[in-house]
Amino acid sequence: MTLNRTPIHVNDAVTKVMAESKTLGLEKIPFDQSNGRVLAVDLTATSDVPLFTKSAMDGFAVNSKDTAGASKDNRVAFKVVEEVPAGATSDYELKENEAFRIMTGAEIPKSADTVIMFEQTKETDHGFTIRREFKENENIALKGEECKVGDVIVEKGTTINPGAVATFATFGYTEVEVYKQPVVGVLSTGTELLDVGDELERGKIRNSNTPMIMAQLDRMGIQGKHYKLQTDDFDILYQRIEEMLSEVDAIITTGGVSVGDYDLLPKIYEKLGAEVLFNKVAMRPGSVTTVSVLDGTFLFGLSGNPSACYSGFELFVRPALNLMQDAVRPFAPVVDAILVEDFTKPNPFSRFIRAELFFEEGKIKARPSGFNKSNAVTSIAKSNGVIVLPGGTRGFTSGDAIKVMLTDVTTGTDTFGVE
Amino acid sequence: MTLNRTPIHVNDAVTKVMAESKTLGLEKIPFDQSNGRVLAVDLTATSDVPLFTKSAMDGFAVNSKDTAGASKDNRVAFKVVEEVPAGATSDYELKENEAFRIMTGAEIPKSADTVIMFEQTKETDHGFTIRREFKENENIALKGEECKVGDVIVEKGTTINPGAVATFATFGYTEVEVYKQPVVGVLSTGTELLDVGDELERGKIRNSNTPMIMAQLDRMGIQGKHYKLQTDDFDILYQRIEEMLSEVDAIITTGGVSVGDYDLLPKIYEKLGAEVLFNKVAMRPGSVTTVSVLDGTFLFGLSGNPSACYSGFELFVRPALNLMQDAVRPFAPVVDAILVEDFTKPNPFSRFIRAELFFEEGKIKARPSGFNKSNAVTSIAKSNGVIVLPGGTRGFTSGDAIKVMLTDVTTGTDTFGVE
Repeated sequence: MTLNRTPIHVNDAVTKVMAESKTLGLEKIPFDQSNGRVLAVDLTATSDVPLFTKSAMDGFAVNSKDTAGASKDNRVAFKVVEEVPAGATSDYELKENEAFRIMTGAEIPKSADTVIMFEQTKETDHGFTIRREFKENENIALKGEECKVGDVIVEKGTTINPGAVATFATFGYTEVEVYKQPVVGVLSTGTELLDVGDELERGKIRNSNTPMIMAQLDRMGIQGKHYKLQTDDFDILYQRIEEMLSEVDAIITTGGVSVGDYDLLPKIYEKLGAEVLFNKVAMRPGSVTTVSVLDGTFLFGLSGNPSACYSGFELFVRPALNLMQDAVRPFAPVVDAILVEDFTKPNPFSRFIRAELFFEEGKIKARPSGFNKSNAVTSIAKSNGVIVLPGGTRGFTSGDAIKVMLTDVTTGTDTFGVE
Repeated sequence: MTLNRTPIHVNDAVTKVMAESKTLGLEKIPFDQSNGRVLAVDLTATSDVPLFTKSAMDGFAVNSKDTAGASKDNRVAFKVVEEVPAGATSDYELKENEAFRIMTGAEIPKSADTVIMFEQTKETDHGFTIRREFKENENIALKGEECKVGDVIVEKGTTINPGAVATFATFGYTEVEVYKQPVVGVLSTGTELLDVGDELERGKIRNSNTPMIMAQLDRMGIQGKHYKLQTDDFDILYQRIEEMLSEVDAIITTGGVSVGDYDLLPKIYEKLGAEVLFNKVAMRPGSVTTVSVLDGTFLFGLSGNPSACYSGFELFVRPALNLMQDAVRPFAPVVDAILVEDFTKPNPFSRFIRAELFFEEGKIKARPSGFNKSNAVTSIAKSNGVIVLPGGTRGFTSGDAIKVMLTDVTTGTDTFGVE
């Protein structure tokens, strides 16, 4: 039994995990399958944007000097001589008070320098009149005004989202280089655990932590590999962990890290020769959360307590798996929120409570999930965040300003937002 | 040309879309592949939780009356007679000052009624001593205290996330009934559009809207079907839309809904006999956004402007596709944020600007993406939200309180948060 462990602050624990996160190498993938992956190289513009000076509106392209003197009482007339649809342009040289009819996105012919929107004209038999002067470049997007060839357009370390995919398309990147994603093995320990399809037996419960973690991995786009339940037998568990080490890039276990007689993982780490980064964190619940490393492979020993398991994943596993892909924004955001239920327990240490977040009039509101009370189970099914209460506090009541970690998000932030 | 259209408020537009959203029927899927789907029935508890009265801690289970009189100066001694690991229990009848050694999660034997944590004891040769009295049910989780058989544990319309998956596991639901997901066809119109792999030509740009929308669908877990680019020819486009109608549950087009001469979609809707829900929304950009319905199938006519296309998807398509699965929280959340750049344009109508959101000290900060300025393109690749500026406002400056729509989230909210 390891009753005496030295707790470290959760921030120090996260820092230790970050320091050990190593990438697994690069691979090229089709750009349209890259959503959620992390870009491994700076991508640069392959052309100016816009590539050519073009109309930003549907209307008429004219020479601005021909609009001189136009006013409400002195409408100036133009004759339309040619049409320029999007995808086309014209080499025609405009004569005085001639105009092109031009569509949004069409290249501005050389002899025009401004665009008048349809809505700014009155139609005539052969053209239109206007009631004000137009300056050069009105309603025009200039070549290269958004970016120039060679500019970095998507940075290394970006977690790719629809905006990044659109940018790849704009510049013709049919393939992009990304970091390989870790394959993660998941194993729940505990003789009391049954599989989901099993009938309940006296003294036992169904394993909910493994499916929960598999879903937490799934929403990160990461492949989880589910290993079947073990009995709390040292040799069998040791053998299974060795097997996992040969098959996956990171291991998540739940349970077995506490001070109970059947908490075998501390001894397993010892026999494996894994470096224990920490085995006690100054937080509740989940203070026994342990993270070890063996030859560059993480062994995340999460608590068997479902709430601690959930938040332990979000606190340590999520940023580590993101950093294993060199993401510059690996952390779930921590933002201001309002507590909508009393939480009067003292918090000698940082407290992380799985929570249901909801949104009202621009405010984020939070309610603890899964406490020992009558709505505990329904609130677990709604949990989409983690309430963060700093250590050294007590007596939070409904309406108090608190912080929450947003867990149901697909892009993150660059700093660990917990104080 | 349809120059005269009647704009409706964005809220009314969303309401019209909601009213037309119809579900596609149910299907049963394995519970561990249900993340992101919408539950179609109320699921009820198949057992009490906890199923049995159990220890909430590692420690010793005793009869509370035996602890009477214990104090710092009068430590009371117990003898350990049996061990109860998790997954087990004991029928042994405790005699006076006898104790079970018990692990977290183990069933409390009938002859004990309270649990003393290891940390609250001092070890002796055959047991331990304690320095305070313990009341009945300390460190114990009572049978049925979290929920009882038959209680609803996950509600119909819940968008399934890891917490819901864990709840299915707890109650042995190996399969769950969910709504079928729509298959969505995506087609960008415009003769000026090239495919991503094409070399640039004068007057043309590569199509970035289709890949962007495919990625927006992908992160909703919805299957997009990409239809190849069309020339702006009425008959070809009409034929393609008819083909799409026979193959998909909803159609998204980009471009072709404006008042330009080659904006063919209004005439296509007319020839199809589709009901146009609206063809002008009092918003910028994307005022020409059009949504039609034909025999229950949505035809979303998004603007070809990439920023308007992005926000049009989030405003109209996201909630519609969620409602087609009967989700009770179909909308992206709209929350308070701080603008970190001047935005001095007047906003005669609601303005929705694709934006880069970031997180600092609990605050959400927002910067417009993709405006005509030098960092436009890089900011598009980072866009993870939409700035929402109400109509009738102008002159927002850096530091102003604004609202933003969070788009990179996987669970939503029950009301459309735009005013």
